[in-house]
Amino acid sequence: MEENGEKRWNFWGMGKLNPQSKTSIRGLLMKIWGSVNKDDPRPLLPLGHGDPSPFPCFRTTPLAEDAVVDALRSAKFNSYPPTSGLQPARSAIADYLSRDLPYTLSPDDVFLTIGCIQAIEVTLRALARPGANVLLPRPCFPFYDSFASSINLEVRYFDLNPEKGWEVDIESVEALTDENTVAMVIINPGNPCGSVYTHQHLKEIAEAARKLGILVVTDEVYHHLTFGPNPFVPMGVFGSIVPVITLGSISKRWLVPGWRLGWLVISDPNGILRKSGIVECITDCLNMTSDPPTFIQGAVPQILEKTGEDFFSKTIDILREVAHICYERIQEIPCITCPNKPEGSMFVMAKLNLSLLKDINDDLDFCLKLAKEESVVVLPGVAVGLKNWLRITFAVEPSALEDGFGRMKAFCERHAKKQ
Amino acid sequence: MEENGEKRWNFWGMGKLNPQSKTSIRGLLMKIWGSVNKDDPRPLLPLGHGDPSPFPCFRTTPLAEDAVVDALRSAKFNSYPPTSGLQPARSAIADYLSRDLPYTLSPDDVFLTIGCIQAIEVTLRALARPGANVLLPRPCFPFYDSFASSINLEVRYFDLNPEKGWEVDIESVEALTDENTVAMVIINPGNPCGSVYTHQHLKEIAEAARKLGILVVTDEVYHHLTFGPNPFVPMGVFGSIVPVITLGSISKRWLVPGWRLGWLVISDPNGILRKSGIVECITDCLNMTSDPPTFIQGAVPQILEKTGEDFFSKTIDILREVAHICYERIQEIPCITCPNKPEGSMFVMAKLNLSLLKDINDDLDFCLKLAKEESVVVLPGVAVGLKNWLRITFAVEPSALEDGFGRMKAFCERHAKKQ
Repeated sequence: MEENGEKRWNFWGMGKLNPQSKTSIRGLLMKIWGSVNKDDPRPLLPLGHGDPSPFPCFRTTPLAEDAVVDALRSAKFNSYPPTSGLQPARSAIADYLSRDLPYTLSPDDVFLTIGCIQAIEVTLRALARPGANVLLPRPCFPFYDSFASSINLEVRYFDLNPEKGWEVDIESVEALTDENTVAMVIINPGNPCGSVYTHQHLKEIAEAARKLGILVVTDEVYHHLTFGPNPFVPMGVFGSIVPVITLGSISKRWLVPGWRLGWLVISDPNGILRKSGIVECITDCLNMTSDPPTFIQGAVPQILEKTGEDFFSKTIDILREVAHICYERIQEIPCITCPNKPEGSMFVMAKLNLSLLKDINDDLDFCLKLAKEESVVVLPGVAVGLKNWLRITFAVEPSALEDGFGRMKAFCERHAKKQ
Repeated sequence: MEENGEKRWNFWGMGKLNPQSKTSIRGLLMKIWGSVNKDDPRPLLPLGHGDPSPFPCFRTTPLAEDAVVDALRSAKFNSYPPTSGLQPARSAIADYLSRDLPYTLSPDDVFLTIGCIQAIEVTLRALARPGANVLLPRPCFPFYDSFASSINLEVRYFDLNPEKGWEVDIESVEALTDENTVAMVIINPGNPCGSVYTHQHLKEIAEAARKLGILVVTDEVYHHLTFGPNPFVPMGVFGSIVPVITLGSISKRWLVPGWRLGWLVISDPNGILRKSGIVECITDCLNMTSDPPTFIQGAVPQILEKTGEDFFSKTIDILREVAHICYERIQEIPCITCPNKPEGSMFVMAKLNLSLLKDINDDLDFCLKLAKEESVVVLPGVAVGLKNWLRITFAVEPSALEDGFGRMKAFCERHAKKQ
């Protein structure tokens, strides 16, 4: 790099490390937030990302806070944690997840991670080998693509079908797979689609993956957050058909994404992932990185064992209510349509009909102008792989959601083509 | 991978992702702990890693615990944090570090990280470009090498001189540098050497780095933990001579390594790292990874602003006492020698004289047998790049340190060659 016109320094930045990151959710949301009019006296309504915790109706249970305070006050958890996590926390997570499985997980199957994000990083890193590729759903939580690209792991996309509850198009999975395909990723309950897969569909996925010789990575960060006809079924139920890596966290079910406590779990009763060396790679990755804080790990057993059904069912009741409001209000806006009523997670995908709008170029333009004129932040579909769609979160206070859709409707009316 | 003799699965693990990781501190210590005799009724004495927090005399201040509890109980910090960290935390760290600098840091110069480990990861990632190399000290905290290797960033070693207080051999830095050298790393106060660099020596390093066109990465995770004649001087003092990236955390000074709260700071009043695009790379890296928990970030202002000198000076007094015990006891063991009395951090390097021992092959063999026979864990020097040395931590309860050296002396006498 030059200084005063002459070469002075050997170092320079490569700029963006990864071209994908320009469409990262964080990056895009920052851009959209930046276009909000600071003189607007109305509150900013954040319908762009899945973080209900600022809203009073989505406050976590005092029991979880108490568990962390107790662990901290004990002074037993100020040290570095062991590589894979504290043993009682691993054991508690194994027990917690085993309740929904036809076999019992061992604590050795559980690895604690810094939120689900680090679980994704470690999984992709452990699967990467020269030439390998992984299959991702479209639409998808974009961090999978960004991180895979940063470690030179090829990604290929299979479609989710909006006409069939965003189910996996298994034929397209088969068409994409070759001898270098190591895994497919599913997200259930679905981000960004709000879908919840049936037992039957998950079994079909497992059987297809077995036939293709690939493992299934299942992102269940929204586990048990379902409020429609389909109950939550963990992919690990089919771990004897195909080896499964389950990713999860306390972030969503306990409404504490900022606590950064997640897990990576080997749901593989036949021990194939151990024999294949994948588990050794996972441990090796974890040996070379940071860990979730020890005292939060120390609180995990109390959090998982003691939280009552009443807390969970209160959250589900509110999510059902706001998902319904969201679906109803979308019907009232001609230029956006929603192929499926959301049944899980905190999101819905809605399709933008640009031909009904007079001066909106695309989904990003819609979101920038909506933020500017109405102080409502929504995520453009391009961030999750579907251009000219919108990802809307309904996990906010019901009154805030009503207010947000009121403003969105006014915005769309103002920009509608005259009939 | 095969199952029942036929190819069944496309995936397999690459085994160890990185050949370096076999000498990671965590990996080696696990091996050494594994050789401890479980039937030994005496307590295991952990002199192998720098974690004083389990010992009552090294308990953190109640003020720090209160700050975390207050942040957690407020329910204001359950959300995802912003990419670079909460603004009040960045601001508090800028103020805290500026106290020791001839210029004022801005909150925008500060990036919060998951312990110092993530600060190292992000720094090396931001500096890496095809063909680049970084200079590391020998001996060194080995994570630098492991992580650099995992991202294909070449490392080259310059020597620290044990005869001159483990100072940097500046001639060897000059000899190693070429047009692809982007940075040199120093660790001050020193891990693993217990050294503390003078103002004059740090200035010489800054001037050499400027001449060579490379930046200085300074690992100050042990900042202010000095108890000899040299006070702690941050490398950032020389930021107007050469751009400096300062890495640090609350782990050591507040005795809470398990809280995983660290920072990466741009100590560069001339703004060269911004102009060169390095700062943009750092932000981009942080956009693509996990964060320290929000409520711990929320506690940072109170922790940094309110902790009194009495807490710090109590820690320093104990460290001075145990460093002295350590140095004296080493003198009483003929087969190990210590070139420098430790003046900072929590470690000392001691040289093993194998010619005085009858049945010890090398430093690793020494540590394995010591653990087996005496339940004392010490780190072999090979882990930090100096074969047939030992890294000993003295940051334990004084009585435990005396006990440990008593056992080590008995071990060495038992294995001594007959004169």
